[in-house]
Amino acid sequence: MTTDRPIRVAVLGAGGLGKAAAQIIGLKREVILTAICDSRGIVWSEESLDTDAVVSLTGDLVDGYQAHQRPRTTTDHGGVTLATRVEARHCDDPIGEMIRRADVLDGVLVALPNLPNDFIPSVIERFATGGSSLAFVDVLKRTRAVQYLFALDSPVSRSRSVVLTGCGATPGTLAAAAVLAAQSFVEVEKVDIWWGVGIANWEAYRATIREDIAHLPGYTVERAKAMTDSDVDALLEQTNGRLELRQMEHADDVLLQRVGVVDRLEQVEVGGVMDTRHAKKPVSTTMTLTGITHDGHRSRHTFILGDETTMAANVIGPALGYLKRALWLKAHGLFGVFGCTEFLPMVVR
Amino acid sequence: MTTDRPIRVAVLGAGGLGKAAAQIIGLKREVILTAICDSRGIVWSEESLDTDAVVSLTGDLVDGYQAHQRPRTTTDHGGVTLATRVEARHCDDPIGEMIRRADVLDGVLVALPNLPNDFIPSVIERFATGGSSLAFVDVLKRTRAVQYLFALDSPVSRSRSVVLTGCGATPGTLAAAAVLAAQSFVEVEKVDIWWGVGIANWEAYRATIREDIAHLPGYTVERAKAMTDSDVDALLEQTNGRLELRQMEHADDVLLQRVGVVDRLEQVEVGGVMDTRHAKKPVSTTMTLTGITHDGHRSRHTFILGDETTMAANVIGPALGYLKRALWLKAHGLFGVFGCTEFLPMVVR
Repeated sequence: MTTDRPIRVAVLGAGGLGKAAAQIIGLKREVILTAICDSRGIVWSEESLDTDAVVSLTGDLVDGYQAHQRPRTTTDHGGVTLATRVEARHCDDPIGEMIRRADVLDGVLVALPNLPNDFIPSVIERFATGGSSLAFVDVLKRTRAVQYLFALDSPVSRSRSVVLTGCGATPGTLAAAAVLAAQSFVEVEKVDIWWGVGIANWEAYRATIREDIAHLPGYTVERAKAMTDSDVDALLEQTNGRLELRQMEHADDVLLQRVGVVDRLEQVEVGGVMDTRHAKKPVSTTMTLTGITHDGHRSRHTFILGDETTMAANVIGPALGYLKRALWLKAHGLFGVFGCTEFLPMVVR
Repeated sequence: MTTDRPIRVAVLGAGGLGKAAAQIIGLKREVILTAICDSRGIVWSEESLDTDAVVSLTGDLVDGYQAHQRPRTTTDHGGVTLATRVEARHCDDPIGEMIRRADVLDGVLVALPNLPNDFIPSVIERFATGGSSLAFVDVLKRTRAVQYLFALDSPVSRSRSVVLTGCGATPGTLAAAAVLAAQSFVEVEKVDIWWGVGIANWEAYRATIREDIAHLPGYTVERAKAMTDSDVDALLEQTNGRLELRQMEHADDVLLQRVGVVDRLEQVEVGGVMDTRHAKKPVSTTMTLTGITHDGHRSRHTFILGDETTMAANVIGPALGYLKRALWLKAHGLFGVFGCTEFLPMVVR
């Protein structure tokens, strides 16, 4: 990252997390938003997109971007004024369009809904088998989804790409904090992650809410995906807007097992509370690692996220930091699929 | 680290931290203690030292090891019984003796007292200019000491070695936790580290206590180094056995500035309380990072070490994890001097 040129990032997905990614990228000087897509189209510029337009739009990406884009000009070093060229168009295969433009990208932040479990892995596999050499980061949550991704190590390595998987909050920085916490102990007994998310309006996170509902007893990923907005409303009406989830299938387990923090997946337990009617977090998001020290004491280290930080800040901030690390790995010829527990994310200025 | 052969580690220093290193190494199967030295001699074996003997000894390393060593035999795979060959001898230049044996070592954990500030850097420089290709880890605390080490990047790289510096608790895992915490924010305002250490008997940590005294108003590294044990006793008598230190010159600042978490060293503040008469920590060791999110909220993430974990567990555990990471970097041809804030430590089984 010693180049002066900013990192050209594509964001896959234009829902709540995709928009948050655009917003945060817009605040950083080391990264620019080069492309973004939803399921119906792609918006793309070799210079840089108007991140405010992405943040402001509602509904369809292509229509919304065109409606919100401010007239802009950029000035090159010679003082000549050029109009920013933006292409925004509907298409049947936005991922395919993205792959065709891969040579003007450095990194890809995947913020697509992962319903079903193998959807994001299949998208990354398309890039890899298409021969794109890129750095990818995802914020996958499910154990099985992350396992699908690790199984792509060979095609990803062959395409001279790097994927860092599970790089949000949980899994993400909380699992990485568990790696730090584990260092004080000769035996790790348990890693408990208990998260709180407060969102004033769940309709800004239509995919995230369904991914959470899928963890409720009696629900599956398929059943949650098939729910209409009224179905979601009806469910939340019964729970006073709250979802309390326990023993979630969360990839923190496989990511911590992979690096030897725990032997068995059952030693990692993830649960949490989502309040869909208030922005205030219902509980503080906390990682607690319990272990035994070399001198025989049982103790606990904790990592606690401040209540004023939103899910978007705690998921997309780390994802960008891990994307910079993925670019570092790629620059050093370390290709393949890695987890959030293997490296520290870098700071994106 | 995919080899079956354990990592052969030399520990430089046989004081409180050196003994703790021997003890923890003795509990792990991935590492063996191949050599240890103090200022007067070296104990060395191509097989593995008796770590219990190191832990039990008092006073002089060579005499103490010989007195405590249990008669031991090892069995090779053919069933032939061989006596473990151990060499223990006094010498004028134990570091020089260690350098001569560098080809049977993989890693070096430096647990020497760092008085004066450039002592440990000068030891590592001797290894590097002597041509040893090794992985080093230190638990340096002072900003200037870590700066000396970073200045050795060229000779360390030329010798195809890796040094990971500042890899204890603070700096060490607490600074690395600040890198994780920083990810949620677009601006980091402050990193506060407030540590508590309780030791029932400071005479087990003669160097550590002097390094802490050197931070008191009116003291310097030189003055603290020159104190006799009675001088230390007299000082502690005045403070009821407690040392409260504020605005310490601690390398967390330069390690966090290096990776862009903070712009200015003054944004990192380190202080703490050492109780030299009780093993119980007087305060909980806590890292607090304060920042501003992309949506304008000020918040704090915290990383808190369990009160039942000792200084030894929180310093030597991470040091071994970072030593394994240093070996990983070396295996990938990434030579030079790096800080604890650049990589996650690995888990040593």
